Amino acid sequence: MFVHEMSIRVRYGETDQMGYLYYGHYAAYFEVGRVEALRSLGLSYKELEEKSGIMMPVMSMQVRYLRPGFYDELLRIQTAIRKLPENDITFHYEVFNEKDELINAATVKLCFILAADRTTVPVPRSIVEALNPYFE
Amino acid sequence: MFVHEMSIRVRYGETDQMGYLYYGHYAAYFEVGRVEALRSLGLSYKELEEKSGIMMPVMSMQVRYLRPGFYDELLRIQTAIRKLPENDITFHYEVFNEKDELINAATVKLCFILAADRTTVPVPRSIVEALNPYFE
Amino acid sequence: MFVHEMSIRVRYGETDQMGYLYYGHYAAYFEVGRVEALRSLGLSYKELEEKSGIMMPVMSMQVRYLRPGFYDELLRIQTAIRKLPENDITFHYEVFNEKDELINAATVKLCFILAADRTTVPVPRSIVEALNPYFE
Amino acid sequence: MFVHEMSIRVRYGETDQMGYLYYGHYAAYFEVGRVEALRSLGLSYKELEEKSGIMMPVMSMQVRYLRPGFYDELLRIQTAIRKLPENDITFHYEVFNEKDELINAATVKLCFILAADRTTVPVPRSIVEALNPYFE
Repeated sequence: MFVHEMSIRVRYGETDQMGYLYYGHYAAYFEVGRVEALRSLGLSYKELEEKSGIMMPVMSMQVRYLRPGFYDELLRIQTAIRKLPENDITFHYEVFNEKDELINAATVKLCFILAADRTTVPVPRSIVEALNPYFE
Repeated sequence: MFVHEMSIRVRYGETDQMGYLYYGHYAAYFEVGRVEALRSLGLSYKELEEKSGIMMPVMSMQVRYLRPGFYDELLRIQTAIRKLPENDITFHYEVFNEKDELINAATVKLCFILAADRTTVPVPRSIVEALNPYFE
Repeated sequence: MFVHEMSIRVRYGETDQMGYLYYGHYAAYFEVGRVEALRSLGLSYKELEEKSGIMMPVMSMQVRYLRPGFYDELLRIQTAIRKLPENDITFHYEVFNEKDELINAATVKLCFILAADRTTVPVPRSIVEALNPYFE
Repeated sequence: MFVHEMSIRVRYGETDQMGYLYYGHYAAYFEVGRVEALRSLGLSYKELEEKSGIMMPVMSMQVRYLRPGFYDELLRIQTAIRKLPENDITFHYEVFNEKDELINAATVKLCFILAADRTTVPVPRSIVEALNPYFE
């Protein structure tokens, strides 16, 4: 299993008039979580797109909103990959507030497609190789 | 069962560099879908908040991304309530593109809380009464 | 002078915890305003990009926030082109709330570039021709 | 004069299909810039709202888009206060890309209002005192 952690501070424009981090913005946090998780493995999503012509569209997302997130809170995003990816890759998320309470839990599954013709391809070798040590 | 339909045109700022409607923006479309569904029943979410002091935070969301949404497409949002709500309310969504292809299917569950003390309350009577005719 | 009007309803996720339409979201409304203004002239920005390979990046924006916009308000967006465009095009915006009060006034200037090599080009002939009748 | 610097990485969802950081998202970056500038002075905007009941709505914004911002770039946001605020406060922004090129220059003016009755008040004493040393 591979686990990565990082923090994101809630922006004012991400709150709504309920005073909560708007439920739609967690998706952007999850995106940042997985990009930084990959970067910590030496993988750049930007280069994957630019050099390999591979894009990663999202196939599905499940989110449970357990507690609200608030303005200016430094949320801790825990991103985990629980099994070695083959045809698609699943990220498991847990978001904690500054009191270390779990406020959100989510799963996001992405696939790999060629930008050129939008056909599905298996997970790139570079990702498998970077993750391999965590699943031996 | 209660079903409502409306359309939303994809804004340029809602696309990403993949050329797709960004996966995080569907949540906002679902919000618009349920607000307009309630409005078609004679219910105003704005008034619910202002007059009854009741807010509806989201408890969970499941989304399946079947096909991409593209810039300037007029997407058809179908919002359904499949059972009479009691303690929470679940909206089922289907999003269709201009070729009438299903591009997205989702479920969003919300609860009801008092703005004053953030305690959970049952579904407001006005919502039950407006929905009742569809479940007899 | 060419003037176009349309309405946009403020989404919940576009409010902030101050209860105002967040100041950063007006830019998206202005985008919708000019796209719909062009569409009313028989011009599709989407086709401009796809068929002519021309994109319109924003060069500058000035915004005055006169009154807040609120959730669920149906805002009226007035988009004006005050002079026939040559090398760039300037849109003048006035946003009114449901009480017909001016809440926002803005100016957005865009240029035209070729997607292929990102070089600047003059305003496309189709736009000049569509606007010509309003400036005779 | 008071100057503060910080960095923000461009998120995927903040790009548009032109491959640029969408022009409307700079406003959120400016918000983060001024909040962090204030925090570096020992001032918390969150506490200002919660403890003093003072909110800071934006009065005006001018933005010049000089070069595009791109996905995954770590943009450097320079936030400056050029004169001691009295009734309102003006932030001057310069945004640089990783090549240290100026890509965006902006000015944002905010005022101070009481949350309770939305009346305008002068700049809070705590802000003047924190800034005073930079203007002597």
